[in-house]
Amino acid sequence: MTARPLNFYAGPAILPLEVLRQVQAELLDFNQKGLSVLEISHRSKDYDAVNKAAEADLKEIFSIPDNYRVLFLQGGASLQFAMVPMNFLRGGKADYVNTGVWAKKAIKEAKLFGQVHVAASAEDKNFSYIPDISALDLSPDARYVHITSNETISGTQWQEYPDTGDVPLVADMSSDILCRKIPVSRFGLIYAGAQKNLGPAGVTVVIIREDMIKLCPENLATMLSYKTHAENDSLYNTPPVFSVYMVGLVLKWIKKQGGLAAIEARNRKKAARLYDVLDRGDFYRPTTAGKDRSLMNITFRLPSEELEAKFLAESAAAGMLGLKGHRSVGGIRASIYNAFPPEGVERLIEFMKSFEAANG
Amino acid sequence: MTARPLNFYAGPAILPLEVLRQVQAELLDFNQKGLSVLEISHRSKDYDAVNKAAEADLKEIFSIPDNYRVLFLQGGASLQFAMVPMNFLRGGKADYVNTGVWAKKAIKEAKLFGQVHVAASAEDKNFSYIPDISALDLSPDARYVHITSNETISGTQWQEYPDTGDVPLVADMSSDILCRKIPVSRFGLIYAGAQKNLGPAGVTVVIIREDMIKLCPENLATMLSYKTHAENDSLYNTPPVFSVYMVGLVLKWIKKQGGLAAIEARNRKKAARLYDVLDRGDFYRPTTAGKDRSLMNITFRLPSEELEAKFLAESAAAGMLGLKGHRSVGGIRASIYNAFPPEGVERLIEFMKSFEAANG
Repeated sequence: MTARPLNFYAGPAILPLEVLRQVQAELLDFNQKGLSVLEISHRSKDYDAVNKAAEADLKEIFSIPDNYRVLFLQGGASLQFAMVPMNFLRGGKADYVNTGVWAKKAIKEAKLFGQVHVAASAEDKNFSYIPDISALDLSPDARYVHITSNETISGTQWQEYPDTGDVPLVADMSSDILCRKIPVSRFGLIYAGAQKNLGPAGVTVVIIREDMIKLCPENLATMLSYKTHAENDSLYNTPPVFSVYMVGLVLKWIKKQGGLAAIEARNRKKAARLYDVLDRGDFYRPTTAGKDRSLMNITFRLPSEELEAKFLAESAAAGMLGLKGHRSVGGIRASIYNAFPPEGVERLIEFMKSFEAANG
Repeated sequence: MTARPLNFYAGPAILPLEVLRQVQAELLDFNQKGLSVLEISHRSKDYDAVNKAAEADLKEIFSIPDNYRVLFLQGGASLQFAMVPMNFLRGGKADYVNTGVWAKKAIKEAKLFGQVHVAASAEDKNFSYIPDISALDLSPDARYVHITSNETISGTQWQEYPDTGDVPLVADMSSDILCRKIPVSRFGLIYAGAQKNLGPAGVTVVIIREDMIKLCPENLATMLSYKTHAENDSLYNTPPVFSVYMVGLVLKWIKKQGGLAAIEARNRKKAARLYDVLDRGDFYRPTTAGKDRSLMNITFRLPSEELEAKFLAESAAAGMLGLKGHRSVGGIRASIYNAFPPEGVERLIEFMKSFEAANG
């Protein structure tokens, strides 16, 4: 087999190798039934068990209170950008915090369905920081407050979440769900495309508080109402069976690693090792403010674009893929999601030191 | 490995064994890059090639004219039930033909977005036939005419399609796409969940004529406009990478079988063999009218519900899974999609003969 390169892609992203090996081993024979998980009925007992275990394991790992439901939907965060206001805005007002490209996309969709108040924005400094939670200009009459908990492109992450009182807090956690412990009870709804920390592309996890489900209007398209999916245990129509199955395996992998506490400790150490290199000298320049730095997407520049191009070419030749920053920020981005191994971070650091020594 | 049972599930359905074997073989190492197709970026050259080849192969196999686009979306036919009227009905009138459970679901969603005229219905005889195409009560001012080309539950299929003139014909072909040659140029839009004839669950194929794309309104949620996906080659947001990859492999498998002509001949022979048994005596009673019978879902009853329960128990014990008919029809349903082998049909026929001999 080809040597396995280090996968720094921002998403779809690296998956745990032992999960991939299990998928491969049982691909033709799921649950000793002689059929592939790719061709079993979503109404079968085998899939029902997959669906139920994925919900139960996510609730356990993420300490989700009993008055929340976990849904497995399709369409990615991009469809959630519209579903949230379709279900909860509907001509009213909502507060959005503009932290970057993904927050802006959510704002654009919400404007189709009601009034959007931008409660804070980090656009003045190219989204290099997260607005101070104590200085958010929140509306008392907002239907909800929407935040993007991690911005993959600019590399920022909320370190604490605002207390929005009776106004539901809604978060896009696509790129940092399950990277650390968070107080789920502070949220009305959390959504996340799976393809960074949860599994492969093709499924979107929604964690919704039960009182929010009651707010979903009756005249929505059936597939676009959270109520439909909650009432049918994510089985209203054919779910993305394989993607949910893989999310289930990734959740079991997290449990085997020691749960979220162990994952968080590993993530904090990985990120700290890299930020330490960035802060140590002048050659590598981090693009994000210290306190708001992402544990997942570490963004930095080199002294020139020529050196950045050289860095990307040489790192790729050394088996490190996906390190090119998004065009809106430029430079380098190392995405080090849950499944990214600490040894991979050390290899990148070694490479960075050699590169600086040769080019600094 | 466990012996491979015969998979008669209505969907997610049987996949070609050689396709599953290829997926398994290359699961950890796609294109000799050392990464899994489950963890590659959708912006990578490798995925771009997958996406483009799947569109090109579908166009070739299905003889899709140049003025059509192929899109790979999420949400299944159930989301298409809403997307079609969101994009094209919008307060106007559309004609729907009510052929069964799936047509009714499409009608229900359309009513949220405009006026629905039922141009014909087979509900009077429990959806056991397809209305005569020459007797459809079509509206001259309809924005489109919607049909369901195959009803999986009742087991009927349109054998020819109506000529709707300048009014676009829209079809849900989830359960019979690529089962036979059809005149694609007669349609404005065709949609199909992949999980019967195209691949695993998690991707929905849309074949759309270019002039239809121009009709999509500007004020729709971005993800719900066909224009978004057409303009971005199905890459507006993260696509269901693995499902599209598998659709591509199934399309290549169809080409290896000799293309659609060979698949159609095989399907017609498989279905004829089974219907022949149903028509030969009184023990098995087909539930659909002769001329409108499905090539894909063959539905029949036995003399009593007790015998049906016995039939299901004994067939399952003999390694034939998924033969239970939908609760609204009862009885037995044998779904024999493209990937279902002719030998499997012969095994079922053998079983049916023995069962009749023992119980008739």
